[in-house]
Order: sequence, then C-alpha cells, then structure tokens
Amino acid sequence: MDSTELIPRLTRKGESKIVFLIADGLGGIPGNRTGTELETAATPHLDRLARDGVTGLLAPVGPGITCGSGPGHLALFGYDPLETRIGRGVLTALGVNFDLGTDDIAARGNFCTVDEHGVVRDRRAGRISSERGAELSRKLRNIEIEGVELFVEPVKEHRFLLVLRGAGLDPALSDTDPHEIGMPPQPPRGRDESSRRTARLIAAFVEGARKALANERPANMVLLRGFDRLPRLPSMGERYGLNACALAGYPMYQGIARLLGMRVVECGPDLDSEVETLQSAWKEHDFFFVHYKATDSAGEDGDFDAKVRAIEELDRHLPPILALKPDVLVVTGDHSTPSQLKGHSWHPVPVVLTAASCRRDVVASFGETACAHGGLGQLPMKYLMSLALAHAGRLSKFGA
Amino acid sequence: MDSTELIPRLTRKGESKIVFLIADGLGGIPGNRTGTELETAATPHLDRLARDGVTGLLAPVGPGITCGSGPGHLALFGYDPLETRIGRGVLTALGVNFDLGTDDIAARGNFCTVDEHGVVRDRRAGRISSERGAELSRKLRNIEIEGVELFVEPVKEHRFLLVLRGAGLDPALSDTDPHEIGMPPQPPRGRDESSRRTARLIAAFVEGARKALANERPANMVLLRGFDRLPRLPSMGERYGLNACALAGYPMYQGIARLLGMRVVECGPDLDSEVETLQSAWKEHDFFFVHYKATDSAGEDGDFDAKVRAIEELDRHLPPILALKPDVLVVTGDHSTPSQLKGHSWHPVPVVLTAASCRRDVVASFGETACAHGGLGQLPMKYLMSLALAHAGRLSKFGA
Repeated sequence: MDSTELIPRLTRKGESKIVFLIADGLGGIPGNRTGTELETAATPHLDRLARDGVTGLLAPVGPGITCGSGPGHLALFGYDPLETRIGRGVLTALGVNFDLGTDDIAARGNFCTVDEHGVVRDRRAGRISSERGAELSRKLRNIEIEGVELFVEPVKEHRFLLVLRGAGLDPALSDTDPHEIGMPPQPPRGRDESSRRTARLIAAFVEGARKALANERPANMVLLRGFDRLPRLPSMGERYGLNACALAGYPMYQGIARLLGMRVVECGPDLDSEVETLQSAWKEHDFFFVHYKATDSAGEDGDFDAKVRAIEELDRHLPPILALKPDVLVVTGDHSTPSQLKGHSWHPVPVVLTAASCRRDVVASFGETACAHGGLGQLPMKYLMSLALAHAGRLSKFGA
Repeated sequence: MDSTELIPRLTRKGESKIVFLIADGLGGIPGNRTGTELETAATPHLDRLARDGVTGLLAPVGPGITCGSGPGHLALFGYDPLETRIGRGVLTALGVNFDLGTDDIAARGNFCTVDEHGVVRDRRAGRISSERGAELSRKLRNIEIEGVELFVEPVKEHRFLLVLRGAGLDPALSDTDPHEIGMPPQPPRGRDESSRRTARLIAAFVEGARKALANERPANMVLLRGFDRLPRLPSMGERYGLNACALAGYPMYQGIARLLGMRVVECGPDLDSEVETLQSAWKEHDFFFVHYKATDSAGEDGDFDAKVRAIEELDRHLPPILALKPDVLVVTGDHSTPSQLKGHSWHPVPVVLTAASCRRDVVASFGETACAHGGLGQLPMKYLMSLALAHAGRLSKFGA
C-alpha cells in the first residue's frame, strides 16, 4: 500500500489556500560552460522562495522515464501516473476543447501517405499545413456509419481527432497505425464481443476515409491510435475536500484540470492575464493551479536563451502572487524539457514549497543542482500533493 | 505498479552503446583514520568521470539487505531482485559452468560430519580440501536412482553441486540441511504430488550418500539446500532490444549473463584481457557488461590495501574504455564488500554515469561520501538500467 492512498481519509476542511505555479517543462540540464536554464536565469524572487522554503527534486513517473503532459499533471495533483492513464485519444480531445461525453470513444488520427499497394510511406503525409488538415477533416465528416454519431476535429498540421458517440462502444481496440513505414494500416482488433463490434465501426470509418481521400496528395489515408474514453477519476473535491480552480491558457491543461474536477476559469495564455484572474478568483477557491507554458515551448524549440527569458518572466510575476499570501505556494514543473534535447526528458524537476510550517533547508537559490540537496530530497512527484495538504494544515493524524 | 514495468514497452532501437563496468563488491566503509578503499585509492580517471557525470548511491535490494551475486546482478540489469529469484542450486551450477537443462533440478550440497546417532556435528566437515571434496564427489556419482540421471560436481572445499535430470521433476522441496548443528539431516519435503515424488528421489540419493560415505572421516554425510531449476527470464534482447554481451572471467557471472540472454565472450579473468575483448566485440554489440572480480576478492579477504590496489588497477584501465566513446558509461558494483567486514554488506554502492545528456552534479571525486550528495540521489539499484537506457536515447515517451 502506498501512503497516498491514506490522503482521502485524512483530509479535513480548512480555510487555507494552496497555489501550484506550474512552469511546464521547467527542468533542464547544464550547458557546456553554464548551468541549466533555471540556473542561468536571474530569479531573485524564486531564490528568495528557495531560501525561505523547502526544496527538492521530483521524479514525475520514475527514474529514466520521460513523460507526456498527462502523466506529469496527474502526478502533480497526487494521482498515481502509473495507475491512472489518460489515453492519447482523450488527451487529443481535451487539447482541442472537444466536449467529450462519458461514453464517447476518442482516437488520435494522422493523415498519412500510402502508395499504390496501400503501404504507408509517410506516417505524417509530409506534415501538411493546418489549413489543409482542416479541409481534409471536413471531408471525413461526410462519412456515415450506421448507429453512431461521428466527429472529426482538425488538430495541428497532420493531426486530427476522431470521436464516436453511441450506445455500447468499447475502446479496447488496437491501433490502425502500424507505427512504422513499409506496412499497410492495420485492421483495428477488439478483444471481446463489444470491442469487436466497435472495431467493425472503426474499420468502416477507415474504409470511408480511404475512399474520401483516394484522390488527395500527399495525404491519401488515415492512421488511428490511442482509442480511449474519459477515465472516471475522483475529483480533487472528493479526494482532498478542495474547491480547486485552474488558470491555464491552453486547452490541453484546461482539459486535464476539468478531468480532475477543477473549475476552469477563463483567462488568456499569458502570465499577466493569469495573475489577474488569480486575484479575482482568490476568494471563491482554496486551490489554484496556475499553468505557465512558455518554459516548455522554449525548451521544445531548443532555445536555451528563450527558456531563460521565460523563467525570468515567471520570476517577475511572483510578487503579485505572493501579495495574495497563499498559505502554501509550490513552484515546480510537470517534467523537464532541456533545450539541449528539444523535448521532454526524464530528469527530475526542481520544486520549492513555502509555508509557515515548512522546514527550511540549506538551499538559497532555485536550481536543479541546489535542489538536489534540498530538504525534501528526491521523491516521486505523486507525493507533492500530500506535502502541500500537510503544510496547509489540511491533513489529520494517521493512527492513534 | 512499478515504473520498471514500463521499460519493455518504451524501449526503441538505436545505435547507441552502453558500457556497465561492474567492480564486484566496490563499496566499503571508512577505516579509523582513512576513508573507504575507494576513497583511499588514487583514481584520477574515475574522479574525472564523477566530475563530468552524475553520481549517486544504489541499494541493491533494500535498506539493510546484504545480497549475494545473484540478486545484485539481477538488480544491475533492471530485473527486480525481490520478484526474480535464482535459487542457490542454480547459482551453484552457473558457478561451475554446468550446462543446466531447463527441466533439471539443481541443489547446493555440503559434505558434513554426523555422529554415531546421525546428528550433524559440523555442517562443513572441517572445511575439507577441494581435492578431498572432488574424490568424495566422484564416489557420489556411483549412486543410482531409478528414472533420473544424476550429476555430482565438486565446488570449492566442502561444497558440491547435485543435479537431477529426468521427466516431471519439481524443485518445490525443503532443504535437508537443518542449518544448525545438533540435529539430524531433515527428510526433504514436497508440497504436492509432483514435488513429493521428487522428494522421494532426493531421499534415495541422501540414503545412497549416507552408505557411500559411511566409512569416511570427517566427511561422512551430505546436506542439500536451495533446490531450484533455471528461472525463465525475458532476455535483455526481449526486454530492452539490446544486443548485449558479457566480458567476465568467472563462471558465476558468465552464468548470470547467459541467464539474461547476453552473449558471453571468451576472455581471461584480468582487466587487460577484458579490455582487449571489449575492443574486439565493440562493433557487434550495443551493451557491454564488464565484470571485475578483484575488488570483491580483496574485500572478502579483509585486505584493505589489496582492495585499494584493485581499485587503482581498475582506474588505470579506464582510458582504453573511454577511447571507445561509449554513449553511456556506468561504473558501479553489484554490492558492497567492506574489507573490515570480510564479506558482502548492505551498504549502498557508489555509482557514476556519464552521457552527453546527463545532468552534472557537484560531485568531483568518486567515493561513497561524495556520491551521497550526487544528482541521482540514493535509489534502488533496479532503476539503474532505466537511467542508462534513457541517457542512451533508447526510451520513448510515456503517455501523451
């Protein structure tokens, strides 16, 4: 048994307020002659938090595991990312703000290129433009399948979302995407009666797509993967007794927040707008998830300096957040995105937590190297929420 | 669920090469006026690795658990040592290079001394010489048991290997070794029909041994323990997509490597020979397990200075390994063997990992005290393989 399983039984009501300031992809690796992006950035306010608070390193999923936004955010909010999965289809739906019903089946689609024998030659159809992707998605909407309602939503470039709505659908299907070139798209396979029925409906859609796209170039076929439906998760209200809200500019993070029962407060994607919204939502809520995307985007772009600037921008926005006097303030990320690697990585993420009851450590600046010596040590990210609740005085004693 | 269970699903093919340089029993404890053996040794190359890489401490099985070579090496290669057991009989067979069949039952035997009432007075028969042990083993080969083929192989001193080969054997048997003196050897007990049949065959062997050794002194009886057969483990090729090879001079480590599907490349037991073989095997493989025994042997002998020299010898052999430019180089041990304790111990083992994508830490010398502040922190050894694969770019992202 894991100690996080105790948390729902130990939570108690309170007036205290918790802020999670999540800088997406915050962690990095050092340059040849520099520290990481975070260590290079001038961050007087974050450093003060490190001095007054307690720090550490968080492993989102486990040593060596690079994770996507789904598992990273689940871990941040105390949901075990190994036990709770959000399928790619569902994440895609969340990412385009599609209002997925509890019985809907969602899949992530790619427009791809097949040759005259039906063999996949490019799994992304040369990364067609988003405009072209939207045109082709509209074509696919004309496909009709008896007994189910069909939704096709364009995502960026060659990506689209497929949703099936109807009675008795079952997402336990294999991908039609062969995940490599030189093979034809695979027929979807179910594992029992109900999923085999859904597989036949998907096969009908794929056949319809093949006909609809037959004369298109280079995107003349589709690949589907990550069939899933909305997971049924206990909300943060149920688990922690929190009245949580999310301030996130991007649909994906809004979607994850909604999945965990947070209220998504409308705000722009920039920090100015998020801080303003935080101020106006302050009275009504007691948990605030503030998502900051720019750190991850700069890391994904491989732009060390842009990530440094994004972190400095974050630092400048701390004073108005601190002025609200949260009982617990946590600053961390959902995973690392070192600009040298141009993508997510497995490196653990620095974290700082401040609260009146925290045990200050020796760390006086907020950075990966320093946080490795922090008072929280290195721990799985799923324990962060337990720590935040404890420091907020929201957990009662376990055992007599 | 543990994150290591994800690894087989996340591995992807690559060209990168990983070297595990395993100094058996590497870890130690400080002397009265010195550091540990590793801290006392002059190790300029290992120190440079520590400066450029990331370090930590690995617990082979768990806090306070002293382990043998079996669990230690399983953990090194990412097989959970608590879930995967290699019985002592099988390890004994691996150690003498016996070609164990998948259905064979192996047991570790001791020649012992019993008194006129059949009560064990010395479980090791005064540690008879290896020559005497070999003579007595030959005597035991004359025992005949209907329906099974019997093999008896001498090991060192009072130790021998017993193997039964035949249809329908079952190793779920209790030891005949009472594990203390003042008691007679115990009848082997099975737990169900098939193991009870095997128990009867073992009882017949024990009775044959009693008769064959009746007039011998001091070794006039045998004790058997650790009945087991070869575990069926997924190979490193299956689990990680690696084409692994082992460079190990001793049969035990060759045997463990073979059990995990590594190709055992013939080489001498010394580092010169291992490094030469590494160079010649370099092109064909992508994972290299290089085993160095001298550190453990010196520790077992209680010879602090010899262990220091063994570590310095290891350090001198690093340049030709580094010259091969492995993408990931790991130096660690399978457990600690402090010379003060003259045997294996539970103390976690220092580790250093170098790779282009590693997050350098503050540690600039390779030693137990320094590595306690390393960037990898202290972690169970079973996660080392996940980290090595991640740094080698051989793991894809978990979740979207």
